[in-house]
Amino acid sequence: MKKIIVVGMGFLGRYLLRKIHENKIPIKVVGIADLAGYLYDPQGLELSKAIKAADSRKLDSLGLEKGTALDLIEKAEADVMVELTPTNVKTGEPGFSHIMKALETGKNVATSNKGPFVTHFRKIIDKAEEKGLKVFYGATVGGAMPTISMPQNCMKGYGIEAIYGIVNGTTNYILSTMFHEERGFENVLKEAQEMGYAEADPSYDIDGIDAANKMVILANTFFGKNATVKDVKRTGISKISVEAVKLAKRNNRVIKLIAYVDKDRMEVAPMLLPVNHPLNVEGSLNAVVFRTDLANNLVLMGRGAGRETVATIINDILSV
Amino acid sequence: MKKIIVVGMGFLGRYLLRKIHENKIPIKVVGIADLAGYLYDPQGLELSKAIKAADSRKLDSLGLEKGTALDLIEKAEADVMVELTPTNVKTGEPGFSHIMKALETGKNVATSNKGPFVTHFRKIIDKAEEKGLKVFYGATVGGAMPTISMPQNCMKGYGIEAIYGIVNGTTNYILSTMFHEERGFENVLKEAQEMGYAEADPSYDIDGIDAANKMVILANTFFGKNATVKDVKRTGISKISVEAVKLAKRNNRVIKLIAYVDKDRMEVAPMLLPVNHPLNVEGSLNAVVFRTDLANNLVLMGRGAGRETVATIINDILSV
Repeated sequence: MKKIIVVGMGFLGRYLLRKIHENKIPIKVVGIADLAGYLYDPQGLELSKAIKAADSRKLDSLGLEKGTALDLIEKAEADVMVELTPTNVKTGEPGFSHIMKALETGKNVATSNKGPFVTHFRKIIDKAEEKGLKVFYGATVGGAMPTISMPQNCMKGYGIEAIYGIVNGTTNYILSTMFHEERGFENVLKEAQEMGYAEADPSYDIDGIDAANKMVILANTFFGKNATVKDVKRTGISKISVEAVKLAKRNNRVIKLIAYVDKDRMEVAPMLLPVNHPLNVEGSLNAVVFRTDLANNLVLMGRGAGRETVATIINDILSV
Repeated sequence: MKKIIVVGMGFLGRYLLRKIHENKIPIKVVGIADLAGYLYDPQGLELSKAIKAADSRKLDSLGLEKGTALDLIEKAEADVMVELTPTNVKTGEPGFSHIMKALETGKNVATSNKGPFVTHFRKIIDKAEEKGLKVFYGATVGGAMPTISMPQNCMKGYGIEAIYGIVNGTTNYILSTMFHEERGFENVLKEAQEMGYAEADPSYDIDGIDAANKMVILANTFFGKNATVKDVKRTGISKISVEAVKLAKRNNRVIKLIAYVDKDRMEVAPMLLPVNHPLNVEGSLNAVVFRTDLANNLVLMGRGAGRETVATIINDILSV
């Protein structure tokens, strides 16, 4: 049974523990860490207790040790370090340090944290290679859709020519609602913020920064680039008027925020699609087209964010 | 570099050789066989010559040896035997014998031939396990879509609850054309036969037998069954009238032949879908929904048949 430690006890970290426990997935959690400290038991934590404590934000009721996540990573014997701390796309921290420490101490890594991969992609990949370890970061792009692991494992030799699609659920929710309810951008955004679908500072999503960061990760993974977000030509959705949406609709078109990457070009911009286009997915769904030499287009569609992302993390751990 | 032998020099076998050659894929073809005999060179065949001879059906111009495919399989040293002979869903032959011989002589197998897997699924899987070899049969369901390898490699622990969708291109072409051009079934079928999209005896496709066989393979792979085609409840598309299609269309619905499998039930039948449903794919495209516990629905869409199927075979060989 694989042994893991989980760093970051936010929503996704807690949901991961719960699903491992409820679904009896053959994974042994030997350590967890958050900002307050960490728990470690080489024999495996008692998950039901740890989940209860984490859910009520009272990890210290279980006798939390007062070290940092780095201390846990250093000390623990585990097959995989699961990194689920908040994303920082400027510095990559604290995720980057956690990942490097894990690799240096012989642990494979599974993470949904984009930060380290848009700031230090090559350093991480090179270190993993040097140590003969695996770094799974499929959950950073497309959530539960195997956007990275499907091409890596199931499309060898297909000849990927371009990858494009909808990789940000918040903007897709806003655009889908504008289309169906014919309401203005500001109005829908405000509602999305109230419902928790959009952040108080929504620019990361609506200006296409999140989608651009995801294209950076795909460019570096599949086109051998060393790209950063500055290499992505980027237009957001905040200038899209309800009139434009209605005009499109009358012509059987829909406006979607499309992210695109190939070996020469990276771009995020609103585009007009026919309503019956495979990328016209509803609500906050994501969809990605792989244009390939041998197999023409392959399309993947699913939950691009949210709790379903733990599915990818679990697949990654079981793949080690 | 992986060494392979290819058994069956029909359209797909020849296209495979051509793509390995043209795309400089790191695979060495040491043998090919068809009904007339076989070519074998442990150092690798000269592919450009072999392709030219196979395309003009003059394999013997290259000095074909007068043995059978089984003789080649027995004799060849190769990592993978690629089995591309015609499908026989009643007996599984000659594919089944080729596959068993390959496993007995230490070769992995990659194939798009459904026959052996609807007739002798467990025998093949057990033999491969006994010998510590791999059998790749992803190309039997969904052509170039990784319908089998994606769940196996990228969805571990997802908890697959059901798999359903469009897995037969011929019937989807007929239904798509009936919908868009509002023409009757017989009329469209005749045209499809003239264009080579449908067989002279079309019942294998239009009565849902092909789709049912594919559900058998998925049931045996993902739900631990030992099913045969008789276990599939099956309704074809030949009774669908143009009036029914038009009525559906007026109500923003489309009629599609949907194949379904879960742990308790296997069925192939025409169904009404909303026109904006992800399974409403055009022409001869295929699309499959994986309903999962952890990740909700994942949808895969692509070329379910035809020459693109070589993509899966090439991925399989490179995965050994």
